[in-house]
Amino acid sequence: MRELVPSLVRKSESKIILLVLDGLGGVRTAGGASELAEARTPNLDQLAAEGSSGVHTVVGPGITPGSGAGHMALFGYDPVTYLLGRGALSAAGVNFALRAGDVAARVNFCTVDEEGRVVDRRAGRIPTETSHRLCKLIMDKIHMEEGIEVFLVAERDHRALLVLRGLNLSADLTDTDPGVTGVRPHQPTPRSTEGAATAAVVQSFLDQVHAILCDEQANFMLLRGFDTLRPIEAFSLRYLLKARGIASYPMYLGLSKIVGMDVSPATAGWIESVEDLKANWYDYDYFYLHQKLTDSAGEDGDFERKCAAIEQVDQTIPEIASLGAGVICVTGDHATPAPLQRHSWHPVPFLMWGESVGVDAVDRFDEEAARHGAFGYQYAKDLMAFMLAATGRLGTYGA
Amino acid sequence: MRELVPSLVRKSESKIILLVLDGLGGVRTAGGASELAEARTPNLDQLAAEGSSGVHTVVGPGITPGSGAGHMALFGYDPVTYLLGRGALSAAGVNFALRAGDVAARVNFCTVDEEGRVVDRRAGRIPTETSHRLCKLIMDKIHMEEGIEVFLVAERDHRALLVLRGLNLSADLTDTDPGVTGVRPHQPTPRSTEGAATAAVVQSFLDQVHAILCDEQANFMLLRGFDTLRPIEAFSLRYLLKARGIASYPMYLGLSKIVGMDVSPATAGWIESVEDLKANWYDYDYFYLHQKLTDSAGEDGDFERKCAAIEQVDQTIPEIASLGAGVICVTGDHATPAPLQRHSWHPVPFLMWGESVGVDAVDRFDEEAARHGAFGYQYAKDLMAFMLAATGRLGTYGA
Repeated sequence: MRELVPSLVRKSESKIILLVLDGLGGVRTAGGASELAEARTPNLDQLAAEGSSGVHTVVGPGITPGSGAGHMALFGYDPVTYLLGRGALSAAGVNFALRAGDVAARVNFCTVDEEGRVVDRRAGRIPTETSHRLCKLIMDKIHMEEGIEVFLVAERDHRALLVLRGLNLSADLTDTDPGVTGVRPHQPTPRSTEGAATAAVVQSFLDQVHAILCDEQANFMLLRGFDTLRPIEAFSLRYLLKARGIASYPMYLGLSKIVGMDVSPATAGWIESVEDLKANWYDYDYFYLHQKLTDSAGEDGDFERKCAAIEQVDQTIPEIASLGAGVICVTGDHATPAPLQRHSWHPVPFLMWGESVGVDAVDRFDEEAARHGAFGYQYAKDLMAFMLAATGRLGTYGA
Repeated sequence: MRELVPSLVRKSESKIILLVLDGLGGVRTAGGASELAEARTPNLDQLAAEGSSGVHTVVGPGITPGSGAGHMALFGYDPVTYLLGRGALSAAGVNFALRAGDVAARVNFCTVDEEGRVVDRRAGRIPTETSHRLCKLIMDKIHMEEGIEVFLVAERDHRALLVLRGLNLSADLTDTDPGVTGVRPHQPTPRSTEGAATAAVVQSFLDQVHAILCDEQANFMLLRGFDTLRPIEAFSLRYLLKARGIASYPMYLGLSKIVGMDVSPATAGWIESVEDLKANWYDYDYFYLHQKLTDSAGEDGDFERKCAAIEQVDQTIPEIASLGAGVICVTGDHATPAPLQRHSWHPVPFLMWGESVGVDAVDRFDEEAARHGAFGYQYAKDLMAFMLAATGRLGTYGA
């Protein structure tokens, strides 16, 4: 059955801006308020005062979302139906054209001790250039069995993409990333009988990688999100929107491309992303801008740095608001509370600002205030419908 | 699977009153508060103070509902499952007995210029008598191909019902109403191969109508909501309720009939509807009263007139409350904010008042207050369960 919202879509001149502060959501703890409540955000507060607020559950109650799931939901695709692996995301992010049957996985270069236990899951966040060098080193030395090709492409910092190509490969494998330090990475393990042969291929690959990298700071790799290519209805068909994704990190450009958006070059950061928005204002109907620094700071447990990343966005709100969009939505793809140092299941505040949105009694932008807003509690996947409605893009349902 | 609520229904003596103020929902804008917040409603405020409030989403997030969908939801039928076309609604409203295979559509008499472009989608809201005359004129002169019968029945004002009867007709056609002025009406277009022959029949009909009406102010017609007869479980079986629908507009009496209610004669307005309620109090378990003027005023962008239509209902609340219902629910079938001049997707406030409903902290009836009420955010289709529960009509689920 066709989904209801796409079946009602029609064209409009009114533009949509979605500002995603990655991992925006926080929690008040016994130790104090959330980052968003603490950050100085006079401009976001003004949007909240002139618009309406709410909180969204990204996937489901108690579920902690990955970045792909969070973004698919904000783009209006049910993240349970449209599950993306990190492999497919990474491939899109580095412009690697996955073919049907390819198996892709996200690589984290890491540091292990002599016993093989993970010491640093990000190998000290080695620079992108080092990742490039390591990928090339491995590609030069690796020897896979007959009929199996391997591709290894540096992404950003310690991240890279692994693609296996060959007949009868399966992505039905568990992650090797244990998610914590002090233990050995997991063995590549099939989730089903289909994955058994591929698990052996990955094991052989990892054994060689360990030998090849033995003298490096980044002396091993962790694999996450084994995945294959999947068909996804494009934004332009689903919503009749010409859409542009603007981000500094390749993965988020990749996510934009997966749903069929045009994308910016990888920007140097938020300020340059806003420049790209302004430069392309007349050529698109929908703009997605991504601020990565909120999430990185949250994952590092750096409360102040997360506040600063929020404030960086806040300072650009006046020039974004002056462009004349029909609706601006500001939110996150999940929570990354600095006190927890990881993605969490907590609901994420959002605000919508635009002529036909309506004005509620909420006059500042934070988790506690947003709960009392006109939107109440929503699912992230439904925010797209509000953005379409607020720009006159949804026809009437039924007689 | 049988639905849960109907499977738990049992009889009770306690009566239900549902007051629907059509298009009640409004929005606070930069220009000021909503109609419901501005209107002087001491009696509705008292019901809110003595009962519990909430807001409901009629169909889904961001979805703007038509009147049929809004009412089906308030009657407890999932509006996505029980989608009604305007044709079926109009037929029920004018007591036209649709047969299986008939195709019905809602007619708007309109005015077009020499180029065929729509100048007025309602032909200056011509009076009902003029519509009667035009329908008769067309019926007298029209010549359809062998095997096709046409029926045209005036509804109210500029509205009428078109029914096509013949073998192998299909309702899978798009509306010809463009929804705006300044453009030509759409051609009748099949949504599927099944609809192709019927589209040609409709085109032939419209070509003749254009010629027949050439000297009239209402010189053409727009068609909406092609539809056929569909089976719907009757109120009396679904809820064990003897129900009466009371309204001034035929379409809302038609909606009541579609779900198997008895109906009042079309009343002259709200005051007469309340008289009908009182006169029939002992003969029914459930009463639905419809106030049309809130919606018409909202669509006309007339804020003050929408307030007055709300106040008209408010003034009758004491006599309605004195009847001794087990529960009174006051709400709308959708929002029609005067600043937007159309149906909108915004949530609609509701209140429930009755002995077993419970009393929350909300002491006035408007959108902002209702959001903080005991019912929180609900779907419109679930309000019926609360009315049944509040009158002791739902048995315990599970052991």
